[in-house]
Amino acid sequence: MTSGTDHQQQEVRAILSKARERRQRALNEFESKKLLAAYGIPVSRESFASSADEASGQAKAIGYPVALKACGADLTHKTELNGVSLNLRNAKEVRKEGERLLSLEGCEGLLVQEMVKGHRELVVGMTKDARFGPCIMFGLGGTLTEVLKDVVFRMAPLTPKDALEMIEEIRGKKILESFRGEPPVDMNRLIQILIALGKIGTGYEEVSQIDINPLKIRPDGQPVAVDALVVLSAQAGERAAQPERAEPIESESRRPKTGEDWKRLFEPRSVAVVGASSVPGKPGYDVIRNILANQYEGGLYLVNPKGGEILGLQAHRTIGDLPDGIDLGIIIVSADKSPQAVRECVAKGIRHFVMAAGGFAEYDQGGAEIQKELVNIIQEKDLHVLGPNTSGNVSTPHKFTSTFFPLGKIRRGNISYIAQTGNFATHTMKYILSGEHFGVARVIGLGNAIDTDECDALEYLENDPETKSILMYLEHVKRPKRFLESAQRVTLKKPVVMLKGGATEAGKKAAVAHTASMALEDHLVDGLLKQAGIARIPEYTQLVHVGKALAMSPLPKDNRVGFLAPSGAMLVVLSDLCTRLGLDVPVLQPESVQRLQEISPPFILMRNPVDIWASATTKGIEYAYREGMEILLKDPNIDAVVPILLLTKDTGIPSYDFIIELTKRYPEKPILLTFTGEAECIGECKSYLEPLGVPTFAEIEQPFHVLSVLNRCRKAMDRPLLK
Amino acid sequence: MTSGTDHQQQEVRAILSKARERRQRALNEFESKKLLAAYGIPVSRESFASSADEASGQAKAIGYPVALKACGADLTHKTELNGVSLNLRNAKEVRKEGERLLSLEGCEGLLVQEMVKGHRELVVGMTKDARFGPCIMFGLGGTLTEVLKDVVFRMAPLTPKDALEMIEEIRGKKILESFRGEPPVDMNRLIQILIALGKIGTGYEEVSQIDINPLKIRPDGQPVAVDALVVLSAQAGERAAQPERAEPIESESRRPKTGEDWKRLFEPRSVAVVGASSVPGKPGYDVIRNILANQYEGGLYLVNPKGGEILGLQAHRTIGDLPDGIDLGIIIVSADKSPQAVRECVAKGIRHFVMAAGGFAEYDQGGAEIQKELVNIIQEKDLHVLGPNTSGNVSTPHKFTSTFFPLGKIRRGNISYIAQTGNFATHTMKYILSGEHFGVARVIGLGNAIDTDECDALEYLENDPETKSILMYLEHVKRPKRFLESAQRVTLKKPVVMLKGGATEAGKKAAVAHTASMALEDHLVDGLLKQAGIARIPEYTQLVHVGKALAMSPLPKDNRVGFLAPSGAMLVVLSDLCTRLGLDVPVLQPESVQRLQEISPPFILMRNPVDIWASATTKGIEYAYREGMEILLKDPNIDAVVPILLLTKDTGIPSYDFIIELTKRYPEKPILLTFTGEAECIGECKSYLEPLGVPTFAEIEQPFHVLSVLNRCRKAMDRPLLK
Repeated sequence: MTSGTDHQQQEVRAILSKARERRQRALNEFESKKLLAAYGIPVSRESFASSADEASGQAKAIGYPVALKACGADLTHKTELNGVSLNLRNAKEVRKEGERLLSLEGCEGLLVQEMVKGHRELVVGMTKDARFGPCIMFGLGGTLTEVLKDVVFRMAPLTPKDALEMIEEIRGKKILESFRGEPPVDMNRLIQILIALGKIGTGYEEVSQIDINPLKIRPDGQPVAVDALVVLSAQAGERAAQPERAEPIESESRRPKTGEDWKRLFEPRSVAVVGASSVPGKPGYDVIRNILANQYEGGLYLVNPKGGEILGLQAHRTIGDLPDGIDLGIIIVSADKSPQAVRECVAKGIRHFVMAAGGFAEYDQGGAEIQKELVNIIQEKDLHVLGPNTSGNVSTPHKFTSTFFPLGKIRRGNISYIAQTGNFATHTMKYILSGEHFGVARVIGLGNAIDTDECDALEYLENDPETKSILMYLEHVKRPKRFLESAQRVTLKKPVVMLKGGATEAGKKAAVAHTASMALEDHLVDGLLKQAGIARIPEYTQLVHVGKALAMSPLPKDNRVGFLAPSGAMLVVLSDLCTRLGLDVPVLQPESVQRLQEISPPFILMRNPVDIWASATTKGIEYAYREGMEILLKDPNIDAVVPILLLTKDTGIPSYDFIIELTKRYPEKPILLTFTGEAECIGECKSYLEPLGVPTFAEIEQPFHVLSVLNRCRKAMDRPLLK
Repeated sequence: MTSGTDHQQQEVRAILSKARERRQRALNEFESKKLLAAYGIPVSRESFASSADEASGQAKAIGYPVALKACGADLTHKTELNGVSLNLRNAKEVRKEGERLLSLEGCEGLLVQEMVKGHRELVVGMTKDARFGPCIMFGLGGTLTEVLKDVVFRMAPLTPKDALEMIEEIRGKKILESFRGEPPVDMNRLIQILIALGKIGTGYEEVSQIDINPLKIRPDGQPVAVDALVVLSAQAGERAAQPERAEPIESESRRPKTGEDWKRLFEPRSVAVVGASSVPGKPGYDVIRNILANQYEGGLYLVNPKGGEILGLQAHRTIGDLPDGIDLGIIIVSADKSPQAVRECVAKGIRHFVMAAGGFAEYDQGGAEIQKELVNIIQEKDLHVLGPNTSGNVSTPHKFTSTFFPLGKIRRGNISYIAQTGNFATHTMKYILSGEHFGVARVIGLGNAIDTDECDALEYLENDPETKSILMYLEHVKRPKRFLESAQRVTLKKPVVMLKGGATEAGKKAAVAHTASMALEDHLVDGLLKQAGIARIPEYTQLVHVGKALAMSPLPKDNRVGFLAPSGAMLVVLSDLCTRLGLDVPVLQPESVQRLQEISPPFILMRNPVDIWASATTKGIEYAYREGMEILLKDPNIDAVVPILLLTKDTGIPSYDFIIELTKRYPEKPILLTFTGEAECIGECKSYLEPLGVPTFAEIEQPFHVLSVLNRCRKAMDRPLLK
């Protein structure tokens, strides 16, 4: 994607260099609009006048009534300075107001402007974030912009699809339809404007922020920039004026990881545990126990200054005693000893490491310095490191793990976790293994991510044949641009689901322009994830629920749910929930309704959702659910089925095999099971069905939350590839 | 509360009767504002002119620039008709525009109006709902009112507290603070306006809707009605023009229930089961089994046409064979046979009934007619009926239940359910009994509620000494006014929590005024519940979670949570959740922080929330959690504590008694437990602690959702009683 035609670029360069010469920090409104107009963004009819007389002549040419504005590069808050006069109807008024405005401090001339009619005001803008780069904003504009906060962001450059999605995402999108006698907004034009802002943002380093507020909608539906502000980047010697994020972008310059690198980390032929311990419960002991429990088939070498035998293996006293050419080093000594340990390992030919200990930059200044030393070693020696402060990785197809939390044998599966937390190689994994009956392919604990970061991890899993779906937990996106690029590719092949921690507002940046002040990290992340096709989830537990569904079920073709419950109230509240979640509970085909009526006593009106109570209590639980579920599964209007199973000993426990049967017969439609009734029976049903591949959920709302996530994953995978 | 002074009433009556004489359907803008002004609502300076000349004279008096508006009772959409001219600056302009406006159809004169300055536009209004009565709306106004939908409702009359809560509830409330150089809005004035609208709404049957849009805020922060519309009720012969809800208000005219009535239903000395069955699994059999399983101590009589023995009891062949003066009849025969059965019972002196069968109005027209017949019998014989279409009631202190779902012995407790669903006397109760270790006092299944409705039930539980907290599930509020009145009283004494089913939009009513078109049932219910001090919950499962917490825990004093987790990521995402839920995660007292640091290895910075990992893994699970929890419980900045307990066999299982100890030592602070780790250990911990009164939650988010509900209950109970 280019950032504009030659002609456009020439025009813009001319405006910018003139402003540079004058050491302007912003373009005045007239210049700002000229710049925007060069990129095809429609602006109000207007002209620049140096005197009140000149202004009155121009006003006549533009046509009364007009607006008159004080114009000057430093006049970025004209309204507050009383620098705007609206609705001037004749030469006398223009001259009088013109004189007044010219007397304002900083006023370099007058902007004579048509009065644009129309009831609707939008805001569009561009701001540059140190990590996210140029980001485009769209939302409801006018004086209420910052009260309503109804804005969305995307990273530039934008595709037409990105722009359209932004437009459709605002809460107040109804304003874009016919409105108070005015026709719908010209959407193509809006899209062009957003794309053009993206081009300006990516094309000109000198432009740091753009605000168009209001972007007014004329009574014919055409958008027009009525006020505009282009803020310039600080020039040499002015850097302090630029708001920038503090974090360095450490990862950008590193060597990309190769397949060979990943093999050493996830399929090592041999492993050294540096900091092996003979004390049960210590990380340096439990890591060995885990490796053994998973029946790791490669060579396993231990280093412990005391030597001796640990779990049946002889420990070496020094790293120097290790054989040469070990694939992977697990460094489990304390932070201060880590750099030396790594150096010694490097001397023995180890270039890949899992660094478990904490106490680095996440802790204090001393730790930060050790971490810096590690970064230097990594760069100098071209190492590949996971961590530090990571609980390690898991790679079940290779029967390997480096976690130090006592997990025992880790169940193999087809989903993988990338997490900026150790939990998925520690206690949350323990919960999954002991309570949720699904397994994993890889777990990548990023820890402090001084080398391997979320982009690397995602790119590894992109081509990992063992990984069918990816779940992520992140608190920071270190390299948003690279991440977007990779994720857009990955989400076409595999579902990617993310929980973003630290989503609450961290306080606004002080900034000249609206766009920048509203570009909070979480807004940017939200835009990034949507743009990338990643399904964002709000709660931690969904990393487990959605993981289970992805591990066991197909993705639904679309958002149309059929469900059965032994309770009218459940039908009502779950229908409410579906509406909130964007799931459709469609009308069934007439044959299905008729067939449902046949399996029920006549005094219940059958439809979707299905009130299965009467059928279940008169014709038997198994018959009612089997027939009811199959009717829904068969119906072409239904993409997924949720049975709320009534299980009590007194009302009868079915043989659950019919559910296995149905999953086999309708392999393309997810069946997510949930329950009501007796806790013991529910537990038994779960324990029977889940190992056979049917996901169950303890609470009746959960399958619906999960389906809405699965549906977003499917939509991302189905999205057209066109730019 | 009166609906205005004599003087106010006279003035308004005069305006209304003049309009009545002219058969107006609405007041014109000038009349509307006069009416509002009579109640102290500030309106723009303006005057009415019959000619353009007259208008220009008035304009001079008001002061240029002025607005000129076509005025007429049928001109309810002036803007769309081009009936408004703004910013007229001199007599010439006024005359020219005046002539034009006077020529518009329906124009009866000109309104000459000051141009009100100020950046902020609100909307306030009143609409009358057939069930809710006059309701007051407040929100963001101007042209975007219906796009933003940032409005809230309350039922009139309003207390100052109601008005203040409304004002603080809108998303865009920031607009009420200092805004673009203008001072904060005069809140007292806003409150007065809302209260005044309530008085007009309750005081005048003739006024059906009021819209003030915009209620503009002058640059000095004073609100002023710039446009206003008062819609009149349809007069005799015009009823069809009035939008009304279809449902009749059946319950309003009934005799109020007495304590004696409730005794018969919940503490019957003797019970007859009409429709007793000898077939296990049939409702007429299971109801007897339930009564016996609960060791009911009163007389139990069965009626079955075949006679014989059922569960060891002799059945009577006819109702006529029953002894006289039985307290309660449980009618479990089919709908069509019910009226006759009731009549025969009445002949034997029974006046209180639980009517279990379905097939009434909820099913079809035939059923509706039977239901009508039942209503007639109830009124004629002055009966007290629960149902029909109810699964019955539960009354553990009296060892009694009328449910026909096989529940067995129902655990006694101190919370009660009122539900427009049978679930809380059927399978959800089974789940609670088998899986959640808490008991209930009363369960009231309302069913079709042809006699006992939600108001009756709430009023019964208000004074029931066995009921400490009330949980409700409703799909309709039949008598909102009475319900509000009662609930406002009850929520001062006991927590009341409600799930409202059927919350999705049912399509807007066609209406002249904004206020009416935005007065969707769910908006009204939301206002009602807030006004009543009822904590509304969004999901079914919370009826169980919150029920458990209410049964086992005290209410927190305020919203300040302390929590401990063995994972930084959990701390981060749960802090995010607290922010979303309005829970505070406060800084601890210095002593607490110091003490926390003492129980942890030095490389973790301790604070609230508490990262307990290092402490737990180095100093032992029990020590770390015991000390950590007690530090939080002791801290005066903390109102409730949530430990996320790490439980795996390898990391060690504590003796849970320290938690019991802590609940005893800090009885005023709720401790809501949740887990991470091994499923089996989690299950064992729950099974041990819950019967001893410590509530646990399977998922880490649940305690926080529950705490936010408990906190709302506490706030309602603490609210000042002043009107």
